[in-house]
Amino acid sequence: MARIVMKFGGTSVGDVERIRTVARRIAEEVEAGHQVAVVVSAMSGETNRLVGLCRSVSPMHDAREYDVVVATGEQVTIGLLAMALQDLGVEARSWTGWQIPVQTDAAHGRARILDIQTEELIRRMEQGQVAVVAGFQGLGDTDRRITTLGRGGSDTSAVALAAALEADRCDIYTDVDGVYTTDPRIVPKARKLSRVTYEEMLEMASLGAKVLQTRSVEMAMKYNVRVQVRHSWPEYWSVPGTLVCGEDEIVEKELVSGITYSRDEAKVTLTRVSDLPGMAARIFGPLADGNINVDMIVQNISEDGQATDLTFTVPTGDRDKAVALLEARREELGYQSLIATDGVVKVSVIGVGMRSHAGVAQTMFKALADRGINIQVITTSEIKVSVLIAEEYTELAVRALHTAYGLDAG
Amino acid sequence: MARIVMKFGGTSVGDVERIRTVARRIAEEVEAGHQVAVVVSAMSGETNRLVGLCRSVSPMHDAREYDVVVATGEQVTIGLLAMALQDLGVEARSWTGWQIPVQTDAAHGRARILDIQTEELIRRMEQGQVAVVAGFQGLGDTDRRITTLGRGGSDTSAVALAAALEADRCDIYTDVDGVYTTDPRIVPKARKLSRVTYEEMLEMASLGAKVLQTRSVEMAMKYNVRVQVRHSWPEYWSVPGTLVCGEDEIVEKELVSGITYSRDEAKVTLTRVSDLPGMAARIFGPLADGNINVDMIVQNISEDGQATDLTFTVPTGDRDKAVALLEARREELGYQSLIATDGVVKVSVIGVGMRSHAGVAQTMFKALADRGINIQVITTSEIKVSVLIAEEYTELAVRALHTAYGLDAG
Repeated sequence: MARIVMKFGGTSVGDVERIRTVARRIAEEVEAGHQVAVVVSAMSGETNRLVGLCRSVSPMHDAREYDVVVATGEQVTIGLLAMALQDLGVEARSWTGWQIPVQTDAAHGRARILDIQTEELIRRMEQGQVAVVAGFQGLGDTDRRITTLGRGGSDTSAVALAAALEADRCDIYTDVDGVYTTDPRIVPKARKLSRVTYEEMLEMASLGAKVLQTRSVEMAMKYNVRVQVRHSWPEYWSVPGTLVCGEDEIVEKELVSGITYSRDEAKVTLTRVSDLPGMAARIFGPLADGNINVDMIVQNISEDGQATDLTFTVPTGDRDKAVALLEARREELGYQSLIATDGVVKVSVIGVGMRSHAGVAQTMFKALADRGINIQVITTSEIKVSVLIAEEYTELAVRALHTAYGLDAG
Repeated sequence: MARIVMKFGGTSVGDVERIRTVARRIAEEVEAGHQVAVVVSAMSGETNRLVGLCRSVSPMHDAREYDVVVATGEQVTIGLLAMALQDLGVEARSWTGWQIPVQTDAAHGRARILDIQTEELIRRMEQGQVAVVAGFQGLGDTDRRITTLGRGGSDTSAVALAAALEADRCDIYTDVDGVYTTDPRIVPKARKLSRVTYEEMLEMASLGAKVLQTRSVEMAMKYNVRVQVRHSWPEYWSVPGTLVCGEDEIVEKELVSGITYSRDEAKVTLTRVSDLPGMAARIFGPLADGNINVDMIVQNISEDGQATDLTFTVPTGDRDKAVALLEARREELGYQSLIATDGVVKVSVIGVGMRSHAGVAQTMFKALADRGINIQVITTSEIKVSVLIAEEYTELAVRALHTAYGLDAG
């Protein structure tokens, strides 16, 4: 007997037939003797419809009223799913955010969960009743108002509930059957990972493997919630997914567990910037003020020691804004030229095993050099090495690295 | 300065443009210096969509979960309307049933309002904030669950809120501009009544003038809430509607204030029923058990004093069921023949003035006799006389009576 939280996203509950299918899956877990809480999103398309209504009434609408409108999406799903469960003979009841309550701060539209009252949920789960909980919503800590956690917040709701319930596991049902060593569309020999650490998952999520919301993984790591990524289709129900967990649960650590890539990169180079103290702050301060997220940075000292070339990356969509901000400060910054280019890709190798093994980066550089791929920028962290290369080499690089680190399926 | 409750139905808030229009009307009342609370229904079509979802998930669904799903319709409207008001510079906030709370009993899907907490609403209304309240919903008195009042319950919500707020008036905005002396489609000379009593309105509502929900009028009468029926279209905003109020507010009482008709009548006659004590109970008991609402009843004593002919009416849709129930008991009841016919209409004249005036019924009988219209059944109450006639005479009878009682517009 285990206590588990199951989370189903908008596509999984997209119509009445799918809601019935989800109910069948939940019934299986109940029949296996588990205590079950379920977190659901709005039916697919519903949140967009509600957001569209708000925007058309008033482009600058009150975030508190936005939350009142948008939170109805999940409320519909919990009622329907509870009915579908009852129809299968499974005892169930729906819970909105305010009924539990899921206490949040008052940052409407992007609230953070502060506390979840679980006494009543646990009492009922112990009696065999399934708790069907609305994801993405809570009760603000002032004024008895409905809050929402922001888009994709249902993953966070599920993990937070699992933490509060001290659940044995939080199963996130989605449209992929697990986390892969790399994008299977590029590398057909990509393998599904049976386990991956929180840290690795965070690097993968922020690098473009859009399986779990970053915030939910951070919360899982903080509260040590074991998260399993699973496919929501019935043909996958007997197949285990990928467990996201702490390093202590992974006995045989792989040196590298995944290769990711991100095409959303633009490279900006400032040539012959004066090599003076505080220059970096004067360059990156305005970008930060403009909400532009600067990622990789590399600085080459010039031969004469008087000036440096500075290269960094920003998201493609922010490129023009970054250029405009820097050009406006040309005189103050005193660089010679500003070169901004797209057509680059960031490829990363990720693995907690790197912490205890030298030579991981060397394997990467050699594999790329062997294919004649030029590395433009390099950055490293404790469990990741990233390189910026020309976009045309994306597939070649990812496949080469996947093979070089022994990740190809046998 | 007055305190008013304004209620807008589903058609009035059917799309974003109409919600904006409603907001403009509310803004006018606020600018006139009034304290305003607004009660709204779900956007038209939305409740049906939600009910349809519930039915397709489970035909025998849990009424508590049904309420969770269906209550979202009004929740969307209050959020959007509050935004639209803010967009016009009017301070406003939305209130769901549970936030106020509107306390109800636990009869899910058809709950009755027990109490409405108004301290906070009044405090804010006095500061100029418009309270935008979800109609049709409340908070059950056990278990913190959402309840709904049943279809059409938003009128009742509005009147109950007006009673709790001790409002000066409850304006119900709908798709007619008031209550008429009769159906203008039949009598072009029908007049809009400036005032009508609760009692008259109740008779009119139950007889087919579908302007206000019967339950809301009963509640208005009980708590002496002045209800004004008004048209929601801008071109009618400067035109007064019809005030539904107590008799004491109507100085010049009309003898008859309205002529109504109902085509939903079937006539059943049992011939030569034994004239024994308890026979009526034995006939109407099974019909009551079968949830068949018997309306008009007339009994003629036979010439020999041994048997009677018994005639009564039932709703058209219950005719076959009534016949089947009575035929199954033919032996016990011992009647000679059973004759059931449609093709009849009930025409009624209604007016509180009847209480103090004799001869009202006589005017009716003479007007019908003059046109050669045969009266099949007659029933009377304190403020109403109803007759059953052949359906083909409906228009002729209604027009004749409208003229006979001096109701034609000049």
